[in-house]
Amino acid sequence: MAKINSNYQKLQAGYLFPEIGKRVRAYVAEHPDKKVIRLGIGDVVLPLPAPILDAMRAAVEEMGKVETFKGYGPEQGYDFLLNPISAHFKSQGAEVAPDEIFVSDGSKCDTANIQEIFDVDNVIAVTDPVYPVYVDTNVMAGRTTEAAGGRYGKLVYMPTTAENGFDPELPKVKTDIIYLCSPNNPTGAVMSRASLEKWVKYAKANEAIILFDAAYEAFITEPGLVRSIYEIPGAREVAIEFRSLSKTAGFTGTRCAYTVVPKDLKARNAAGDFASVHALWNRRQTTKFNGVSYPIQKAAAAIFTPEGAKAVKANVDYYMENARIIREGLKSADYTVYGGVNAPYIWLKTPQGMSSWDFFDNLLSQVQVVGTPGSGFGSCGEGYFRLSAFGIRENVIEAVERIRTRLK
Amino acid sequence: MAKINSNYQKLQAGYLFPEIGKRVRAYVAEHPDKKVIRLGIGDVVLPLPAPILDAMRAAVEEMGKVETFKGYGPEQGYDFLLNPISAHFKSQGAEVAPDEIFVSDGSKCDTANIQEIFDVDNVIAVTDPVYPVYVDTNVMAGRTTEAAGGRYGKLVYMPTTAENGFDPELPKVKTDIIYLCSPNNPTGAVMSRASLEKWVKYAKANEAIILFDAAYEAFITEPGLVRSIYEIPGAREVAIEFRSLSKTAGFTGTRCAYTVVPKDLKARNAAGDFASVHALWNRRQTTKFNGVSYPIQKAAAAIFTPEGAKAVKANVDYYMENARIIREGLKSADYTVYGGVNAPYIWLKTPQGMSSWDFFDNLLSQVQVVGTPGSGFGSCGEGYFRLSAFGIRENVIEAVERIRTRLK
Repeated sequence: MAKINSNYQKLQAGYLFPEIGKRVRAYVAEHPDKKVIRLGIGDVVLPLPAPILDAMRAAVEEMGKVETFKGYGPEQGYDFLLNPISAHFKSQGAEVAPDEIFVSDGSKCDTANIQEIFDVDNVIAVTDPVYPVYVDTNVMAGRTTEAAGGRYGKLVYMPTTAENGFDPELPKVKTDIIYLCSPNNPTGAVMSRASLEKWVKYAKANEAIILFDAAYEAFITEPGLVRSIYEIPGAREVAIEFRSLSKTAGFTGTRCAYTVVPKDLKARNAAGDFASVHALWNRRQTTKFNGVSYPIQKAAAAIFTPEGAKAVKANVDYYMENARIIREGLKSADYTVYGGVNAPYIWLKTPQGMSSWDFFDNLLSQVQVVGTPGSGFGSCGEGYFRLSAFGIRENVIEAVERIRTRLK
Repeated sequence: MAKINSNYQKLQAGYLFPEIGKRVRAYVAEHPDKKVIRLGIGDVVLPLPAPILDAMRAAVEEMGKVETFKGYGPEQGYDFLLNPISAHFKSQGAEVAPDEIFVSDGSKCDTANIQEIFDVDNVIAVTDPVYPVYVDTNVMAGRTTEAAGGRYGKLVYMPTTAENGFDPELPKVKTDIIYLCSPNNPTGAVMSRASLEKWVKYAKANEAIILFDAAYEAFITEPGLVRSIYEIPGAREVAIEFRSLSKTAGFTGTRCAYTVVPKDLKARNAAGDFASVHALWNRRQTTKFNGVSYPIQKAAAAIFTPEGAKAVKANVDYYMENARIIREGLKSADYTVYGGVNAPYIWLKTPQGMSSWDFFDNLLSQVQVVGTPGSGFGSCGEGYFRLSAFGIRENVIEAVERIRTRLK
């Protein structure tokens, strides 16, 4: 008798974005004449820049000729992509060898799959609010008990709110695996060097592992901020880093990301002996994954050329100007806003302590702007709201103007 | 203290193909003057046909314009691909709705990931020989004990050898989840309609689930053979089917596949209540996967147009003519051969009961042909050897000629 993985039945409701989609579709069906502006889901809108397209075009032509056709590639990614990524890390002050990099089809996949190589009994720590994938995948794997009051048992939640400057405090209980995201989705906060040093020290002292999600590092604009956790001495022994081309280069529909597992990273097996985490992830990827499509890897490699880097930087700058417009506009309307300086997300406090979903409904019904309720990211996100800077400029300006002038 | 998933340490040696690669590289380094012909790993060599390339080219151009740019798509795949796949099933006599199809980046991923949605205590049955991914992913998930004599404890192995006509017998112990692959990798055998009917009946009687890998269905040449398990009445209640474009359309480096989870398929939860397996897989995919790259899905959709279908059929025919050449050539040299009629693999008996790896080494050192040792697929594969029909014609002819005339 086949039995399901009953842990799935502990999962609360659907994923956040389907619920948003449902409410927006219902509104649009009732008000087909209204122009809805979507700043909810963090999806890019600008087309792929010319150098990226050129590389993809050339690779498509290669696939059409027997002399240059490509079948199976290395599951970890081609050297033509691994080498420039390694050099990119070096330019940011981080030592990452090409064979410590694993190219994949998305950071969502990687941050979701990484937990497989760890024991089910590890204690997991997440921030609150948090990117839901970290939590849900650990629920599915059986690392939690049932949810109560919006939180799963056994998970360690670390509040990151305005009260602590969105900087998670070290957990009071012992934890084994800690998810950190900087620049943060959803709060837009960047962890300081001192904070990351504190975390690396904590991980070393506790033989814990940090899963560092740097999907938004390209959006850091202020100098001196940490882009890779490997800039922190000792991090290679305690941290895995995830990076994505989705927002960096507009690859949400093109699909490419990469994950770093340093060879210095060890964790204990059931007998208490150390094992190489790099070897485990390599085994996982070679057994369960077949590498990223060749033309997509070629397109990704173009991002690391001078012309490609310049072009994707221009797109990032465009979104960050959107972020500035949203941030300044809301401030001038007396909203309390966070983020939007080193991240494409503006995290605002709802007025008069309104609930996140009430604010969502007001925003949609009164001014036809879609955002993301903070409570969707965790109970500490209640009373907050996320606006994404990924929009066409004129829409962003109009959305801010509508909020400033028409939202009651 | 972070602990690894110690189940990984039960895994025996590396995956088969890295070992082959190692031996071939060593040989080539010592004999740089010899021309090695590779019929080992099942990787295609013909370029993507024109209709597929045209669709990919057009999609790349769409990604370069703001009006047609695509960001996140549905995790399950776009309707423009799901609908023709559904129609394709219908043309084969199988009822599969578009929303029962999940497009992915590979059947290796899907057959590897599917076990996640099932309880760790299910009893798993596999054929012997078997595609190693089915086994290894269940070892990783903790469904086996340590290996002894090339077999993992708790797994149920079903011998499929010349003695039983490569048709696995129903297991004598109760099993919950059964992996079947037809046309078979590595034996090249196709399961008969009667055999599949027997399996569907068994699954119903035992509330078991069949994981049916049909990655090679496009290579069936004889009329009347079953291409989809859903041609068998009742299969929608007991089976998941995996299909791949890797070999069908030369997508090993392009990456696209699809999996069918019928809405009629149920399995019990820990409390003994029925749950929808479709809902579980949908939750798995939406949480851990972001869909296949847009240009790749567009290319895949072109396979299901009349021009695309004709073009990929021509490539399949080319490989099956290779298969005929290998099969007939070896037969004429008194080899006992199986497969190669409805599958791109020829499964031969090694001469004089030689071990699979000894035959591999002889073949490489004497005639510079690379194949795959049968024992790499399981202990019942010992004394067998797999040759792949995925080669350029002149190389295939030369390989057969070398074996016929020069192999001692």
